[in-house]
Amino acid sequence: MTSRVREILSWYGADSAGTLTNLARLLDHGRLAGTGKLVILPVDQGFEHGPARSFAPNPPAYNPHYHFRLAIEAGCNAYAAPLGFLEAGARDFAGEIPLILKTNDNDVLREEKDPNQALTASVQDALRLGCCAVGFTIYPGSAHQLEMYGQLRAYAEEAKRNGLAVVIWSYPRGSGLSKDGESAIDVVGYAVQIAAQLGAHIIKVKLPTAHVEQEAARKVYDDRRIPVATPAERVRHVVDCAFAGRRVVIFSGGAAIFDDDKLLDEIRAIHAGGGFGSIIGRNSFQRPKEEALRMLGAVMDIYASPPASAAGMR
Amino acid sequence: MTSRVREILSWYGADSAGTLTNLARLLDHGRLAGTGKLVILPVDQGFEHGPARSFAPNPPAYNPHYHFRLAIEAGCNAYAAPLGFLEAGARDFAGEIPLILKTNDNDVLREEKDPNQALTASVQDALRLGCCAVGFTIYPGSAHQLEMYGQLRAYAEEAKRNGLAVVIWSYPRGSGLSKDGESAIDVVGYAVQIAAQLGAHIIKVKLPTAHVEQEAARKVYDDRRIPVATPAERVRHVVDCAFAGRRVVIFSGGAAIFDDDKLLDEIRAIHAGGGFGSIIGRNSFQRPKEEALRMLGAVMDIYASPPASAAGMR
Amino acid sequence: MTSRVREILSWYGADSAGTLTNLARLLDHGRLAGTGKLVILPVDQGFEHGPARSFAPNPPAYNPHYHFRLAIEAGCNAYAAPLGFLEAGARDFAGEIPLILKTNDNDVLREEKDPNQALTASVQDALRLGCCAVGFTIYPGSAHQLEMYGQLRAYAEEAKRNGLAVVIWSYPRGSGLSKDGESAIDVVGYAVQIAAQLGAHIIKVKLPTAHVEQEAARKVYDDRRIPVATPAERVRHVVDCAFAGRRVVIFSGGAAIFDDDKLLDEIRAIHAGGGFGSIIGRNSFQRPKEEALRMLGAVMDIYASPPASAAGMR
Amino acid sequence: MTSRVREILSWYGADSAGTLTNLARLLDHGRLAGTGKLVILPVDQGFEHGPARSFAPNPPAYNPHYHFRLAIEAGCNAYAAPLGFLEAGARDFAGEIPLILKTNDNDVLREEKDPNQALTASVQDALRLGCCAVGFTIYPGSAHQLEMYGQLRAYAEEAKRNGLAVVIWSYPRGSGLSKDGESAIDVVGYAVQIAAQLGAHIIKVKLPTAHVEQEAARKVYDDRRIPVATPAERVRHVVDCAFAGRRVVIFSGGAAIFDDDKLLDEIRAIHAGGGFGSIIGRNSFQRPKEEALRMLGAVMDIYASPPASAAGMR
Amino acid sequence: MTSRVREILSWYGADSAGTLTNLARLLDHGRLAGTGKLVILPVDQGFEHGPARSFAPNPPAYNPHYHFRLAIEAGCNAYAAPLGFLEAGARDFAGEIPLILKTNDNDVLREEKDPNQALTASVQDALRLGCCAVGFTIYPGSAHQLEMYGQLRAYAEEAKRNGLAVVIWSYPRGSGLSKDGESAIDVVGYAVQIAAQLGAHIIKVKLPTAHVEQEAARKVYDDRRIPVATPAERVRHVVDCAFAGRRVVIFSGGAAIFDDDKLLDEIRAIHAGGGFGSIIGRNSFQRPKEEALRMLGAVMDIYASPPASAAGMR
Repeated sequence: MTSRVREILSWYGADSAGTLTNLARLLDHGRLAGTGKLVILPVDQGFEHGPARSFAPNPPAYNPHYHFRLAIEAGCNAYAAPLGFLEAGARDFAGEIPLILKTNDNDVLREEKDPNQALTASVQDALRLGCCAVGFTIYPGSAHQLEMYGQLRAYAEEAKRNGLAVVIWSYPRGSGLSKDGESAIDVVGYAVQIAAQLGAHIIKVKLPTAHVEQEAARKVYDDRRIPVATPAERVRHVVDCAFAGRRVVIFSGGAAIFDDDKLLDEIRAIHAGGGFGSIIGRNSFQRPKEEALRMLGAVMDIYASPPASAAGMR
Repeated sequence: MTSRVREILSWYGADSAGTLTNLARLLDHGRLAGTGKLVILPVDQGFEHGPARSFAPNPPAYNPHYHFRLAIEAGCNAYAAPLGFLEAGARDFAGEIPLILKTNDNDVLREEKDPNQALTASVQDALRLGCCAVGFTIYPGSAHQLEMYGQLRAYAEEAKRNGLAVVIWSYPRGSGLSKDGESAIDVVGYAVQIAAQLGAHIIKVKLPTAHVEQEAARKVYDDRRIPVATPAERVRHVVDCAFAGRRVVIFSGGAAIFDDDKLLDEIRAIHAGGGFGSIIGRNSFQRPKEEALRMLGAVMDIYASPPASAAGMR
Repeated sequence: MTSRVREILSWYGADSAGTLTNLARLLDHGRLAGTGKLVILPVDQGFEHGPARSFAPNPPAYNPHYHFRLAIEAGCNAYAAPLGFLEAGARDFAGEIPLILKTNDNDVLREEKDPNQALTASVQDALRLGCCAVGFTIYPGSAHQLEMYGQLRAYAEEAKRNGLAVVIWSYPRGSGLSKDGESAIDVVGYAVQIAAQLGAHIIKVKLPTAHVEQEAARKVYDDRRIPVATPAERVRHVVDCAFAGRRVVIFSGGAAIFDDDKLLDEIRAIHAGGGFGSIIGRNSFQRPKEEALRMLGAVMDIYASPPASAAGMR
Repeated sequence: MTSRVREILSWYGADSAGTLTNLARLLDHGRLAGTGKLVILPVDQGFEHGPARSFAPNPPAYNPHYHFRLAIEAGCNAYAAPLGFLEAGARDFAGEIPLILKTNDNDVLREEKDPNQALTASVQDALRLGCCAVGFTIYPGSAHQLEMYGQLRAYAEEAKRNGLAVVIWSYPRGSGLSKDGESAIDVVGYAVQIAAQLGAHIIKVKLPTAHVEQEAARKVYDDRRIPVATPAERVRHVVDCAFAGRRVVIFSGGAAIFDDDKLLDEIRAIHAGGGFGSIIGRNSFQRPKEEALRMLGAVMDIYASPPASAAGMR
Repeated sequence: MTSRVREILSWYGADSAGTLTNLARLLDHGRLAGTGKLVILPVDQGFEHGPARSFAPNPPAYNPHYHFRLAIEAGCNAYAAPLGFLEAGARDFAGEIPLILKTNDNDVLREEKDPNQALTASVQDALRLGCCAVGFTIYPGSAHQLEMYGQLRAYAEEAKRNGLAVVIWSYPRGSGLSKDGESAIDVVGYAVQIAAQLGAHIIKVKLPTAHVEQEAARKVYDDRRIPVATPAERVRHVVDCAFAGRRVVIFSGGAAIFDDDKLLDEIRAIHAGGGFGSIIGRNSFQRPKEEALRMLGAVMDIYASPPASAAGMR
């Protein structure tokens, strides 16, 4: 085990050896094993956006086995999906790649200005499927946020008691925020903090913009001259908001881009800012597999290179 | 053990020896050990106000270990924080300072005229983290107040059965009150009484103003000439409202002041009025550590001095 | 994942993907990863035989960390030990080697003609320590055998429900057997069958002799001319008794030998007979570490070589 | 917190922060706070030997408050007693000294060649009484040993889950052993190992003699020339048997001596051999309090002095 | 409430206010209310000795209502009986006299040299019948003693959690003792200590003789010149054995006497020795009611008189 992985595990002193073991499995698998960086393949879009929108751009992706194979062949650290997708391949690919069970989900058949998520799987499901972690989405800013926090609390407690890790998708959304606010630097930093305070081991957020949403926050960003002009600066600030880098924060690839230069620039910014990696869904599985493997390889090349500066610096 | 601590413990006759032991641990730790006075460092602002607003004024405070160290070095009686912050240091600082686990929290990504809190940690979490007490916030005056009282009831019962103490943050807020009403003397006195009736061992409120919010109350305050003109008088009245001083009431430092003379005047008023101490968050961790230690030292000097008059006098 | 590991997993169709994942972890770790062969380091002798008899021959072995390191450096598939030894290193070595928690144990402070075992750890312990499997000893032939079978049943059910694997140490012993009978070919074959019928994923037995203990059995061995003259033939028969090779059977190194030629001859016989590997305790940790690594390397060389003939042939 | 206490806590990586906190409370209380050494007052003799035999030599000791006061005034690290004695003072002395609840007990109204213990208190009792640890006696060598190990397993698991520490009194006894065997060096070393493997945090044994009880062990002690001629050598060997000094082993003062020179010589041997301290009952409370305080002071003087050599050396 | 009752309640600091309330009910009822003395009517002889032996001497006593009326009319503090007798009158006499439910019983249809008791009622039964306490018999010295202690532990914990008091009948008996030993002063003192350590609030024993049963004890009684020549001295020693008088010890009237002078002499001895009262069965209900009332009146006269010396003196 590398000293970097050991260092990361040392941040989780309240967790059992079992949970540390599963964190180690995530950090020590695939092409980035041991670097302290993670690239995870998430495929919850079939539930979240609908199958045609998700899979028609690359029809083999309708098949759940496709995603297991993509994650394995690309050397991802883990594959994350809802119950159905994991059940459809867990036996066939047992032991080949760490799994993260998304335990709540929502769809877009209704547009809600205050979105919520349904509990769609249990911690016990994660154990029987051989997962290393449970995933849970919260929407800070939604009128339903407190309900989601409370559900997460119970899931996290049960997961930790059984030696699993907890991955939180923290997506600001809802009537408390403007559309721009969902990716505002202050709001994303806040979303990371909330997830960390709720006991997350790994936190997934979107790459933030330089927009500042909340008046009370803007004053601080201005007064303290918090540098948030470049993507790398914003990543560094978000990592700071995750307990000064003592919690693992990874960034989503966001909307499908199809401009790999732009995508790789984002990865470089995440890497430069001390981010711990990426969770790349649509940009992976909505293109032909060979292309996806090439792109994920390029992403991992960046994360495998020496970082410009160290994270967890405070 | 001092006779003052023994006297305080004697007020909690319905509690188990285990809960008394944990109360004694809070009262017998740090610079004010044995005086019956408490200065507690609370750091839930990362969750409640967001990380940049909370920690950018003093960036080392992004790191959860910073707060453990600040509380220990300052000689505080205890350190109170949400799950994530305590998990991030509980093993590293095991046994060095009494811990209070905040078990519910809210954020400011939404403005709610009737705020509520999410359950974010459990009594079992408090046991596995080695805490002396659970902390719980209620918002008397909110449309959600009864739901919060009911959740608190279950938490308090479980905490007491397991030998833990219960600390209630009682913050009047919500559509039932005007903005001024949140810190009105009658309302704060009422909030203290509610917390005490709900079974709190320690109650945290804000320093009240001389404003009287409720018409029905104003008549009594006037008729009975309850003295509430000075801060010390108001503290004394609030302490009276906590079972004639037979429950420990501490006062928050309130918004960041940056005027230490003003802050210390408040402390003197709390001390003169028979208050049991302070819970000082932003005024502690939003300034450089050396300054914070100096300020907390000055606060403790006041509490360690002979009180002008005795509390618990009825 | 190799086709051999896949084939082995295919034999466990009633198990959850979680249990298969943990079996795969055992089969895919260390120097023999992917071969379908296993070399496991077991250290329960401190409990079973006493610390001086176990560790004085190589005093660094008094330290629980020694055994974690030995298993890791040797490239074993797993390390198996009682609760105390695993608790003493599970955090320090989290994620570095698959762990098997021995959940029952006995000592030799009493000589019982009908030995029994005490429950010394739980399935929940295995989860919090990050183990892949629970280990359980049964003594077929003891007056207490049915009690042990019943306890195992409950443990195995709980382990499987939580995605763990079950390893049974099946040691014939007790007033139902002569001393020679404990390692008689019919009895060892029977012990393997019992363990397999009780739901074991992996079964550990001693290398049997050519002795046949039970009259009723002898008739069959003679009539059917079951070949049991050579060690390899006896291994093949024992593997047959484990569901025609559809359960993983491994063999103990037995008493400390200190004659490595003899030991390696046994390993060659196990390999030739289609055995799945070895569990080597005293012969590993009762000699200096460098010597142990050399010996374990030689053992693994044998298991890594092409087998003379295929197992699981029926 | 001293570096020695931190080092000791680091050996218990599988335990929760709560259990570490309670271990720290035991190690950081009283005159030996921070030294890593412990002197504990145990008073279970009223139950184990009868009240007259226990208390008539110093009649104030009939009163349960006497023992609380003795332990507090002497500056002991902790006071250990059965349910009734702790219930009789836990409120009166709440928070004044760490408590250890003996959860099983036996009496001498019957002479059993294979002694057993009754469960006399629960883990929940320990929580409501504010204890830091549960105490549990096992009799390795008794026909009832496996039953006791199994009961302990359940108690230890519940205690750890609730953040308590586990202290095991490991007293070899029963038809498996000769009378001399009960304190034989091989048997005491074995008893320590069993307690450690069962998950003890602190282990109490008697000072062993140079006698070797078991034939199979004698060969090893002779062949390996394990030095056990002097008391200090035997202590060192026993500490080795406790995971090479990575578990806290303390020694009982044994039968009432009334020859303080002999007693203090024993303490010097324990200290020289790397033992972690003493648990001194009859020699403490069966003499007038002033004398007891003087004697305990002399014992603590020895433990507070620099040790001749370090424990936990492997 | 008298200061004596308050003093007695103060000894039970680990108990809830609910249990104290029920103890107060026992102490504040009947003719001896407030004196700190108790006279209890127990009628378990129907079960323990058979109905004819118990009730034929006074046939109205076959009727369960008889005993309720007797206890009420005599001004006893409480009435104690097995489930059936209490069920037969609990509604009819609800609120008229404190009840104690005997929760285990034995009969004499078998003579066992090592007697045991059957669980015959539950704590839940005591609650539904409105009892103040549960009663439980242990036989220290029986081969079944540890089993009884363990059952009692569970009953006492449940009773206390539900606010009930616990009364232990502690009757030395069994193959560990000679017939004389059952009432030997050392054995009765030991039996009282065991009951107190098991958490009893009230302990019932037989008046001891001057016989000393155990060799190891005799030495102490002789060396320490413990005065046990007179009944009052023996009572005083037994009270000492009950935590120096900090547990309530009452004495049975023993076998039917029919010599009231002798009986009243015993009462005078109990009173003089600092005993807390009597539990008088056969001497009460095996004679005509008027006679019984007269006799019980005489007993209470003694207990209501000023004691020669104070109990709880250490």
